[in-house]
Amino acid sequence: MRVSYLGPKGSFTQIALTKYFGDDADEISQRSIGEVFNTVEKRMVDYGVVPIENSFEGSINNTHDLLIDSTVKIYDEIQIRIHQCLISKTTEINQIKKIYSHPQSFAQCQSWLKANLPNAELIPVFSNSEAAETVSTDDEACIGSLRLTKLYDLELIKKDIEDSKENTTRFVILSHEQQEKKGHNKTSLVITPPDSDASGSLYNLLQPFASEGINLMRIESRPFRGQLWSYVFFIDCEGSIEDSSILNAIRTLKEQNIRVKILGCYPSQQHP
Amino acid sequence: MRVSYLGPKGSFTQIALTKYFGDDADEISQRSIGEVFNTVEKRMVDYGVVPIENSFEGSINNTHDLLIDSTVKIYDEIQIRIHQCLISKTTEINQIKKIYSHPQSFAQCQSWLKANLPNAELIPVFSNSEAAETVSTDDEACIGSLRLTKLYDLELIKKDIEDSKENTTRFVILSHEQQEKKGHNKTSLVITPPDSDASGSLYNLLQPFASEGINLMRIESRPFRGQLWSYVFFIDCEGSIEDSSILNAIRTLKEQNIRVKILGCYPSQQHP
Repeated sequence: MRVSYLGPKGSFTQIALTKYFGDDADEISQRSIGEVFNTVEKRMVDYGVVPIENSFEGSINNTHDLLIDSTVKIYDEIQIRIHQCLISKTTEINQIKKIYSHPQSFAQCQSWLKANLPNAELIPVFSNSEAAETVSTDDEACIGSLRLTKLYDLELIKKDIEDSKENTTRFVILSHEQQEKKGHNKTSLVITPPDSDASGSLYNLLQPFASEGINLMRIESRPFRGQLWSYVFFIDCEGSIEDSSILNAIRTLKEQNIRVKILGCYPSQQHP
Repeated sequence: MRVSYLGPKGSFTQIALTKYFGDDADEISQRSIGEVFNTVEKRMVDYGVVPIENSFEGSINNTHDLLIDSTVKIYDEIQIRIHQCLISKTTEINQIKKIYSHPQSFAQCQSWLKANLPNAELIPVFSNSEAAETVSTDDEACIGSLRLTKLYDLELIKKDIEDSKENTTRFVILSHEQQEKKGHNKTSLVITPPDSDASGSLYNLLQPFASEGINLMRIESRPFRGQLWSYVFFIDCEGSIEDSSILNAIRTLKEQNIRVKILGCYPSQQHP
């Protein structure tokens, strides 16, 4: 089984992949979320893994934007707690003068850095693995997953330096197939209102779900490319795509000329 | 009049500031959105300017998160078209081997860069002004506003390299005061549902607006810190905070134990 993921090696996405598929999958690192979508679309791999939402930072915009037009489906989801570590050649925190990291990791460790390394120079790079690769002297450090210490032969200075202990990222498994329905299901949809004044009609978009008694677990708006200040809406609702309530809601929306795309139907991990 | 803004000098926020306040304001650059909020809260300045939404990238998360708890109000809004330029010591595009920029600017010029400079090394920095400051040889370039050429004594290689010609950013003017009502008004609110299953009750949150016939111009969800997978909602609605319809809707929400914070009431620039 071949699975592509948002790399590089040691990324949180790879940790999610291993947690989901175990050690047997052939793990293929990609440089961008777009390239993970591409490898799945072209059937170069069986599955792809990308982040979709972080409990602290919110939605991963790129994943949402690609889901609007892609032919791939959401096969499943998995979430992992994000633990950030300070990593270096040395274990001596006092020596650290420069820290490399992805800007998002700096943001997640803001308070800890201010309290413990207020004078260190923060240098942004494209990924935490690139940061780990850059660390070459005892006054340099990087921020990232514990796995980076093994991959790049580095030492752990301090673990769990993230400010929010609730820091969790949800990942989606992309595929062409839909899994067999079982247990507590969740259906993900993208809804595109017909006119330019999209948000004005949001209440109408939600009405069919309310009248069918469907519980909405999440709603997320994204800009609708090409039309200024219009939006498409991502909706996760409780239930299976085979439930008559969800089928009725989708039919009602389509009758109103509202475009509905089914992204996937899978067991919900969010409310265990 | 003293106005702080998200700097550094030459940033798109400064361009918005000058467009709104003219040349008479004392423009004070801040290093982060949080510091702009801070200077307004502590009355070190009369106004602050920060970006809130980009038509291409979506919401500016940091601004939304700070608005949840801050004591400052949205005094007004202004939007500007974002034009990205390729800038260097030279005017010869063929010489360019390295390009410095904020990751968001790379994202906005992705197709142009792939078509015109496919082999250039892209180096991320914290701001486009920092990028301009770094450019020191003829094989280096940066991406940013035309204003950077004057500020850093650089040459324009190519203007309007952004992929989307609809690329527009909306900025808010922060202040302690509310402006005199005039013309077409817009009211901005933050709504925090009482229970943990926030998004499930979204339809109920919107119901009071629908039954009062209030037009919703925008809705945006953000993670609710401290509670996994719960959300707060930012709502922009058409009308003034003195309209009985809006007052009624807010009263109905509060009766249901839903926290409503009024962020501001100001003339709408979005639908001229």
